[in-house]
Amino acid sequence: MSDAGGRLPWELPLGATPQADGTTVFRVWAPRASRVEVEVDGLRTPLDEELGVFTGRLDAGAGDRYRYVLDGGDPLPDPCSRFQPEGVRGPSEIVDPAAWTWTDAAWPGLDHDGLVVYEMHVGTFTPEGTFAAAAERLPALRELGVTAVELMPVATFPGDRNWGYDGLYTWAAHPAYGGPAGLAAFVDAAHAAGLGVILDVVYNHIGPGSETIDAFGPYLTDRYGTPWGRAVNFDDAGCGGVREWAIQNAEMWVRELHVDGLRVDAVHAIFDAGARHVLAELCDRVRAAAGVPPILIAESDLNDPRTVTPAGRGGWGFDAQWSDDFHHALHALTTGEGDGYYADFGGVGHLAGATARPFVYDGRYSAHRGRRHGAPADGIPASRFVVSSQNHDQVGNRAFGDRPPAETLPLRAMWTILSPWIPMLFMGEEHGERRPFAFFTDHIDAFIANATREGRRREFAAFTGFAEERIPDPQDPETARRSVIDPDGGDPAVRELHRRLLALRRELPAAERRLRSDGAAGWIGVARGDVEMVGNFGENEVEVQVDGRTVVLATHEGVGLRDGVLRLPPLAGAVVR
Amino acid sequence: MSDAGGRLPWELPLGATPQADGTTVFRVWAPRASRVEVEVDGLRTPLDEELGVFTGRLDAGAGDRYRYVLDGGDPLPDPCSRFQPEGVRGPSEIVDPAAWTWTDAAWPGLDHDGLVVYEMHVGTFTPEGTFAAAAERLPALRELGVTAVELMPVATFPGDRNWGYDGLYTWAAHPAYGGPAGLAAFVDAAHAAGLGVILDVVYNHIGPGSETIDAFGPYLTDRYGTPWGRAVNFDDAGCGGVREWAIQNAEMWVRELHVDGLRVDAVHAIFDAGARHVLAELCDRVRAAAGVPPILIAESDLNDPRTVTPAGRGGWGFDAQWSDDFHHALHALTTGEGDGYYADFGGVGHLAGATARPFVYDGRYSAHRGRRHGAPADGIPASRFVVSSQNHDQVGNRAFGDRPPAETLPLRAMWTILSPWIPMLFMGEEHGERRPFAFFTDHIDAFIANATREGRRREFAAFTGFAEERIPDPQDPETARRSVIDPDGGDPAVRELHRRLLALRRELPAAERRLRSDGAAGWIGVARGDVEMVGNFGENEVEVQVDGRTVVLATHEGVGLRDGVLRLPPLAGAVVR
Repeated sequence: MSDAGGRLPWELPLGATPQADGTTVFRVWAPRASRVEVEVDGLRTPLDEELGVFTGRLDAGAGDRYRYVLDGGDPLPDPCSRFQPEGVRGPSEIVDPAAWTWTDAAWPGLDHDGLVVYEMHVGTFTPEGTFAAAAERLPALRELGVTAVELMPVATFPGDRNWGYDGLYTWAAHPAYGGPAGLAAFVDAAHAAGLGVILDVVYNHIGPGSETIDAFGPYLTDRYGTPWGRAVNFDDAGCGGVREWAIQNAEMWVRELHVDGLRVDAVHAIFDAGARHVLAELCDRVRAAAGVPPILIAESDLNDPRTVTPAGRGGWGFDAQWSDDFHHALHALTTGEGDGYYADFGGVGHLAGATARPFVYDGRYSAHRGRRHGAPADGIPASRFVVSSQNHDQVGNRAFGDRPPAETLPLRAMWTILSPWIPMLFMGEEHGERRPFAFFTDHIDAFIANATREGRRREFAAFTGFAEERIPDPQDPETARRSVIDPDGGDPAVRELHRRLLALRRELPAAERRLRSDGAAGWIGVARGDVEMVGNFGENEVEVQVDGRTVVLATHEGVGLRDGVLRLPPLAGAVVR
Repeated sequence: MSDAGGRLPWELPLGATPQADGTTVFRVWAPRASRVEVEVDGLRTPLDEELGVFTGRLDAGAGDRYRYVLDGGDPLPDPCSRFQPEGVRGPSEIVDPAAWTWTDAAWPGLDHDGLVVYEMHVGTFTPEGTFAAAAERLPALRELGVTAVELMPVATFPGDRNWGYDGLYTWAAHPAYGGPAGLAAFVDAAHAAGLGVILDVVYNHIGPGSETIDAFGPYLTDRYGTPWGRAVNFDDAGCGGVREWAIQNAEMWVRELHVDGLRVDAVHAIFDAGARHVLAELCDRVRAAAGVPPILIAESDLNDPRTVTPAGRGGWGFDAQWSDDFHHALHALTTGEGDGYYADFGGVGHLAGATARPFVYDGRYSAHRGRRHGAPADGIPASRFVVSSQNHDQVGNRAFGDRPPAETLPLRAMWTILSPWIPMLFMGEEHGERRPFAFFTDHIDAFIANATREGRRREFAAFTGFAEERIPDPQDPETARRSVIDPDGGDPAVRELHRRLLALRRELPAAERRLRSDGAAGWIGVARGDVEMVGNFGENEVEVQVDGRTVVLATHEGVGLRDGVLRLPPLAGAVVR
């Protein structure tokens, strides 16, 4: 039943794997079928079965297209397809990673401690919306001070425009972006530019059209619910093949695509009550698969230190996790917004807490959630938390996808980049992008297209009070087009501020921070090494007694330092030494 | 919002709490109501609200009966009622624990390492089916060598006959058993007899009629499913009051009822994705509430060492957990049964593994479950696992509730009692009880009564091939009556064997075991200290070379030891020194 290494049939390499002798081994986990054929060039070849895994070897190689036929039904793409050249409804294509040219042998790997992340959506980072076009702008990012690009999910989703979270063929880089070869070339170019690549991967649900994947085996479960429908089956009968679909995919990105790290989407929606959590196994195995240690980042809404606790101490073993409390505290305080989850934030104390700890909700009662939330993360290194002033969710999940108010940007940038945590910028943030990042889709299923359009408009019309027609239509190609960033339309001063902040960050001692604040006046001071950064989050000018005698950097011209008193206009900040 | 100790309103004592001045404080978490009155003697008094918790103080005391009126609706019992004298549909009664007489000041508490558990169903342990009648037989259990009685759940369930897992008023000992005063007297009598009391508590679901509890607040959730319906809401909005309903109840048992430990039912169906698992919090708080350390035991189907790992190392912190693999391996091997979950067992190797480790499935693939199951429990003390040859589930969840075949009992008893794990006997096992322990109910809701009857009969008719009419009707009072054990109908030799085995167990070194086995011949040897126990699980007589020169104990007369060769008939065992 299991091989010499104790591996079960689905624990051997899944997908279509070209061999050195010119043949290709097909292996597909399909316990729902009693008979599986692989179809290449119109010819169907039956596969051998063991414990629901179907295997065969054919004279076929890179570029050949194939589909599987389950019990004589309609041909379906491979759930572990590495390329869908014609999209989610077309055939799968055999990919041979050995055919890619790599020039990154000298790339030393990503420095975890010095990490500065830049979140990028390939489709809207350039007008072309391709890996190749994006690659041309990588040197400028390195020059700015970024150290890694984090690509929003590139898995093949329905249609040509999508944030990426509707991915269906998780293993297959989208053809509209340039497919797997395009991604490989992008990673190679990034390494050449001195940048790492982190890939956003979605294992908590499968996008619209998942029935063509669930036809193979019990990928989905009713045991748990997620906001996006049925949860992925990581712990019930048949979960072995599903776990391999996720974990072998994660291994593939680091091993075959030379990706330097993964950002695992919404781990709070990945349910596994079993004795070995799929995320702990994933982290272990991806580390073993990589030549140099990858960085594994979780998006987590749990405020649970277990996420970044090593597996040996009961954790999942991620290297880092997002800490949204920081964003919410910073956004609510600088904008005064108090709707939805911002109701839990808005005070100087919230931002001071998010800057010091980083969880504001570490067991405290959250009125928005109607329960106590989180646990303290005391003693966990600061490099285990990623924070941001903007990200795709916080910008994009607004009715109009509007960026934060321009007047708040300098102080927000300073507070994020000089924080003890790992900063992440959202593409365009570095030049003060004013174009929105709207929610857009290109669903090819008419029912889903309509439901998405209507659902989005109804939700945000109710929330904002605007007429539904005013809410951007996610299916309209213009909505995506308007979200393409415009590097020439930004503010050169904002870009320069980012460059200087990132340079200053490199001088600061890792992790160290000593906080003081005045809630009534509205300012916070964070001392790191021999510098202190002070921000005025109040509505009035403040005067703050500081030890520093020099202003190293200021967000505004009106900042003054005289006789140990720092004068800050509202929404201004300065670093003194 | 929270008090000086940081407690939220629902974290203050829930229920009706008599005060020293003759008044009673009522506190009920009812966020679904905007107005709550307490009704005593036909008089309704409005309560004050804060964050969904309603509080008031009345001139009322022990013995007074009350109900709550939510928004002018029908009066309902208190979800945290301590007594339901007229059952689940009657009023709640104020209970004053200070009125109970205790004589157990000298009781030293339960010795965890020497624990020998006796599982008891109060309703069928004696013909009377009461705490008082059960108490009279406690000295005989102590004399046998038992150290603690584990009571199956005593919470108020619908009707008068039930295993206890259909409990609705979790805090209220059932009136048919003798109510809370009866339970207190039972615990006092147990302590006088030198026995501890462990109580089986159910927090994974709420029995039929739960709508009268869910009317108060979001006790139940659709986020997770259990085999018994909706899961209890331990991590979603409003979970704070639900967590307190469970945890304050657990605290109550040890603090007010002097209970020495809890056996928490089916922890695998208690879902909490939050940062502080409700079971970890429960263990912590119950320990803090008890004078002497209680023993906290989990029934777990997870084979996950996290259950008994301390909270500081990422676990839930139970003192022990059930290990069903031991039972299944022992039962399948001695009976040859291979249906359902027994399909995963049946070999000598399975039982050897369960005796040595204790998880047979510690990451191995389980065909019955269709997935890998469990994780290794290496390095965890043997006293953290409870094993049995019989328990209410394994006996009762058979079509006829029949006990294991008589010829298997001596070897099973030896193997369980002399194992390195904590042994648990199921009432009657010690005298070779032949009466069945059938599944019985007394549902008062006609729809549920019918569904239970039909469901049970259909399931087991399909499973056994018998006609449905042959399957016992759980609602028939005779089914429960026939399950009452008959201590006079047993086999004195079996009782004597148990007494001797328990005496011998006390001489063995804790935890130590060295195993050897012969899968082909069918025997296993377990050396513990200077003795070795050898069991013949095969179909033929075996001869086993042993170091021992004396037979300390044998299950059968035909056992012989000559010239270092131990001769064992099938299903016989012996201990040599």
